[in-house]
Amino acid sequence: MATRNDLCNAIRALSMDAVQKANSGHPGAPMGMAEIAEVVWNHNLSHNPTNPNWSNRDRFVLSNGHGSMLIYSLLHLTGYDVSIDDIKTFRQLHSKCAGHPEYHYAPGVETTTGPLGQGIANGVGFAMAEKLLADQFNKPGHDIVDHYTYVFLGDGCMMEGVSHEACALAGTWGLGKLVAFWDDNGISIDGHIEGWYTDDTAGRFESYGWHVQSVDGHDAAAIQAAVDAAKKVTDKPSLICCKTIIGKGSPNKSGSHDCHGSALGDAEVAATRAAIGWPHEPFVIPADVYAGWDAKAKGAAAEAAWNAKFAAYAAAFPAEAAEFKRRMAGELPANWKALTDAIIAETNEKAEKLATRQASQKAITALAPILPEFLGGSADLTGSNLTAAKEFKHVSGKEPGNYISYGVREFGMAAIMNGMALHGGLLPYGGTFHMFSDYMKNGMRMSALMHQRVVYVLTHDSIGQGEDGPTHQPVENTSGLRYIPRMDVWRPADSTETTVAWVAAVERTEGPTSLVLSRQAVPGIKHDSKHFDLIRKGGYVFSDVDGKADVIIIANGSELDLAVQAAAELNAAGTKVRVVSMPSTNVFDRQDQAYKDSVLTPGVKRVAVEAAHPDFWRKYVGLEGAVVGIETFGESAPGGVLLKHFGFTVENVVNTVKSVL
Amino acid sequence: MATRNDLCNAIRALSMDAVQKANSGHPGAPMGMAEIAEVVWNHNLSHNPTNPNWSNRDRFVLSNGHGSMLIYSLLHLTGYDVSIDDIKTFRQLHSKCAGHPEYHYAPGVETTTGPLGQGIANGVGFAMAEKLLADQFNKPGHDIVDHYTYVFLGDGCMMEGVSHEACALAGTWGLGKLVAFWDDNGISIDGHIEGWYTDDTAGRFESYGWHVQSVDGHDAAAIQAAVDAAKKVTDKPSLICCKTIIGKGSPNKSGSHDCHGSALGDAEVAATRAAIGWPHEPFVIPADVYAGWDAKAKGAAAEAAWNAKFAAYAAAFPAEAAEFKRRMAGELPANWKALTDAIIAETNEKAEKLATRQASQKAITALAPILPEFLGGSADLTGSNLTAAKEFKHVSGKEPGNYISYGVREFGMAAIMNGMALHGGLLPYGGTFHMFSDYMKNGMRMSALMHQRVVYVLTHDSIGQGEDGPTHQPVENTSGLRYIPRMDVWRPADSTETTVAWVAAVERTEGPTSLVLSRQAVPGIKHDSKHFDLIRKGGYVFSDVDGKADVIIIANGSELDLAVQAAAELNAAGTKVRVVSMPSTNVFDRQDQAYKDSVLTPGVKRVAVEAAHPDFWRKYVGLEGAVVGIETFGESAPGGVLLKHFGFTVENVVNTVKSVL
Repeated sequence: MATRNDLCNAIRALSMDAVQKANSGHPGAPMGMAEIAEVVWNHNLSHNPTNPNWSNRDRFVLSNGHGSMLIYSLLHLTGYDVSIDDIKTFRQLHSKCAGHPEYHYAPGVETTTGPLGQGIANGVGFAMAEKLLADQFNKPGHDIVDHYTYVFLGDGCMMEGVSHEACALAGTWGLGKLVAFWDDNGISIDGHIEGWYTDDTAGRFESYGWHVQSVDGHDAAAIQAAVDAAKKVTDKPSLICCKTIIGKGSPNKSGSHDCHGSALGDAEVAATRAAIGWPHEPFVIPADVYAGWDAKAKGAAAEAAWNAKFAAYAAAFPAEAAEFKRRMAGELPANWKALTDAIIAETNEKAEKLATRQASQKAITALAPILPEFLGGSADLTGSNLTAAKEFKHVSGKEPGNYISYGVREFGMAAIMNGMALHGGLLPYGGTFHMFSDYMKNGMRMSALMHQRVVYVLTHDSIGQGEDGPTHQPVENTSGLRYIPRMDVWRPADSTETTVAWVAAVERTEGPTSLVLSRQAVPGIKHDSKHFDLIRKGGYVFSDVDGKADVIIIANGSELDLAVQAAAELNAAGTKVRVVSMPSTNVFDRQDQAYKDSVLTPGVKRVAVEAAHPDFWRKYVGLEGAVVGIETFGESAPGGVLLKHFGFTVENVVNTVKSVL
Repeated sequence: MATRNDLCNAIRALSMDAVQKANSGHPGAPMGMAEIAEVVWNHNLSHNPTNPNWSNRDRFVLSNGHGSMLIYSLLHLTGYDVSIDDIKTFRQLHSKCAGHPEYHYAPGVETTTGPLGQGIANGVGFAMAEKLLADQFNKPGHDIVDHYTYVFLGDGCMMEGVSHEACALAGTWGLGKLVAFWDDNGISIDGHIEGWYTDDTAGRFESYGWHVQSVDGHDAAAIQAAVDAAKKVTDKPSLICCKTIIGKGSPNKSGSHDCHGSALGDAEVAATRAAIGWPHEPFVIPADVYAGWDAKAKGAAAEAAWNAKFAAYAAAFPAEAAEFKRRMAGELPANWKALTDAIIAETNEKAEKLATRQASQKAITALAPILPEFLGGSADLTGSNLTAAKEFKHVSGKEPGNYISYGVREFGMAAIMNGMALHGGLLPYGGTFHMFSDYMKNGMRMSALMHQRVVYVLTHDSIGQGEDGPTHQPVENTSGLRYIPRMDVWRPADSTETTVAWVAAVERTEGPTSLVLSRQAVPGIKHDSKHFDLIRKGGYVFSDVDGKADVIIIANGSELDLAVQAAAELNAAGTKVRVVSMPSTNVFDRQDQAYKDSVLTPGVKRVAVEAAHPDFWRKYVGLEGAVVGIETFGESAPGGVLLKHFGFTVENVVNTVKSVL
């Protein structure tokens, strides 16, 4: 029978060999964390390798994602569909074993990690989701949501600001089922960390209200004792500080940054084999080691036990059980289409003059009753983002609820929402000022990379923001977000477009949506009902002329009205102007060419109007067209004054149109 | 004579009245921090209102920048060129008193604040700059660099991740002359903070190695005692936790978020006047209160004393004194043009095949001896970013030096560099992977907003990055940075272009520069020397044909070589192809129209090639041209494999050119 040491060495060997074969990767962390991994995965993690989607599995996050060979080793050894051949293709095109753990590439990878600090924040999201769902679904004697979230993280994660944001909030929430293991190896890429990282990390996490322990990260018994103690503390998240030697096993490179981010080299790999007593060829694992790791039977039994539990729950609470299944599957509620069509029609009927952030609040309020998975929130701007509806109940981990004040923690919010979306059962959305999407941009990108349905509510969307000045006025940001692959950005022009955008965001299973919303009021518009389907196409002919247009004005958001007014003036003077409303360029770009040509007739000159950087719009107006936009930073003044100052006037739009004809 | 209470009430009155007049702004923080402000500004801050540029002044940062009326009140009252009429135009177009404190709008505003958390990080940068310059210039008996940095910050700053990054590093550095005051008022925009902010902040800062004290923020004597104690601890930064009542003085709104971010209202302003005993009309300050605040004489004396000190220094160390003056003025060293022309010519002569990150390291190495103000650094990727030259000495606050390992703290690095650049005397640059410019994007934007000469070294610039996969491969980011107003982005194609880009970045006094550099090697190119000046124009004709070109290929960075090869193939087949190298679109866009037309001849079809999101390039190729780019996320595989996989091949460029002809 394989010893624990053999089991750990299997990780070491697979990791160093895969990195060596790829001649690229990070052997240090997997080799240093092998004992911690063995304790967690072999003795604590409740999971079923043959069903990675079992809803009540414990979640595992490798926040120090560069150590990806650690998780690939674990997935392979415990019985997931990650073969030795997959591991041999580590870091090669289309391998399950990508350079960093990529969600949806290898089964069992719960979240894509690599951008440091976000994994631990995702972990906080997983643990919050578990708590929120347990509060919503569990019944006395029926704990159908009841699992742990384990996170490994390294010094880099600790240094990143997002770890502060997420871990502080985890402390406030008292997330007792979150257990994090810090790989305290004293090494980062620049070398020994004394010159840049001297935090008393235990003290830091205690200041957040965490339960903190310190152990020798190569002492399995000590690690297990710490896990046991962590689980006993049910009202605090736990950090287990594990003193480790990076690259442990490598006789000449362990304990130094030489083994952090590059292959050990053939000689050192051989020396390591000898030093750790691992005589087997690369990628050969003895049967007893496989047997010592195999988690398939244990996992199937665990899931079967839960299935029995769930069956009892379903018998006692059939409606709740059905709802739980629907929500975990990410399916829309029954009658979604009819209900939302009615909401859109009713919104249009009212045609209220509102800021689109207000329209968004009305949409949220209308959708909330049919979307119990809605989980609202804001990075401390609830009253400005208008992200809460009256019916929402604030939650901070103590009582059930569905609205989170994340604090002034944009990046933490995004990464936590990613964790909640990945967990399943919740549809998280969060607000901040559009400008501060900057602070969380990489978290938004991660939503897109992982295909997650997260909705970003970005209000105060241009210089129309007004008095707060250039630090608070996005100029370049909307287009920056549009360029993120798979991110849908909407900048609606009125209440109806805002409502349609919200419905589209909820329906979208492919990825995240950013709703870019105005601070200031925009006119109420009563659309012809045929617009409802057209708005969903991202861009449509808002108003047209008889025969062929001389020019097309493309506008969106608060500038659509400028386009409409300019068109009226031009039409009266004999220039035939079509107005295209383009709330989402991303969605419009996905339409077929025939539709796109029907909106933007080839050969017709075009002028775009958006209170943002103009260059983005060249993709629609070309070199012959023109853009009314803003290339400089804004200023501090009332929004109306600024819009006029920077040329967002009917007069300027009219003159710009004339200039291209 | 005015009492201390009168002096504090002057701040309260000016703040509430200015916010009321603008009907916009944040009265809560200025009213709550009035006593702290009076202690710091009237009894500790060494500054000269009549010369805000005195180099040895203490620096003051209002990190909770929304409380801008606090600093405007202080500037006005102590004698800066901020008149009562300026205050009356608070938050109006072109007022010195913008919504948030804007650098260069009002004298005495040391840094633009508002985006939370960055002010305290700027403060860390100011204190680091002071320490670095003191180490470099002071001589026994001649402490010509010797000042404090005071920072006010609020709960929002505390929650933001960037405060963690910067304050942890400040602790490592032991910045004894940094004194921060936390406005601990228990309120943020979402209300009482118990549901989202429960850190033991004192414990947190102690874990960073700070000296921490807690006082009643309305007790002037206690605050002064804490400042005295803070100054005595010379090897640790100090945090003074000040328990305050937000909006103190307002009888009905103090202590609640109602006074955080909106005007008190006429009735409450009147009630506050009565409650605090301030019978004066709005914007009327009694003479004795002005007298109690006036810092002009004291400031002039302080500067005069320093001038005498500096004169003694200059007598003893004339070369150092001249150098200090040059550096604080931000002037280039003597012979700059000749020296850098020689470096460029020599680089071109060698025409080495190198990754542009390697070329960048060579440029740094060549420039360092003539630029003692160079202050290098990396967010823990020194060996990858190649940001260090052998001659650099690592510094962590204990010994002198000129290279900083910032740790894995991109955002903190950017905000700290902004503080150092604002301080003067240093030219900071910092590296990270291009992808993680996402983490510090708003800090980069702040460099641009404040016109600061900060250089961002962004390596591993595309899918050419290779095995690390999509989390590490920028696709949309280069163009996102190009859209930041006043940010110059360079993506050079070879060693010579890289060197020219570095020289341009150093010469640029208008704002920051981002150098976007390849991981992989690019061919060595021996340019005609006439290119040297053309490269500086951002875009130029790299190779041309006789007569009018049929098509222009625009490329940059690692893709220039593809364009060159495709052009050769096409030219051989009879299609006349001009190749334009466009290392910096931002710089090219600033050239006159005649030059731009000479490079991109109007009417000639164009194809752009960049391993990044294609839509950006529509501004040059129009609707009739084409772009070889990438709209999706990357993958994990060797860089060469990926470039081919995503269509960055000569064949694809050739076919794309054919498709537009």
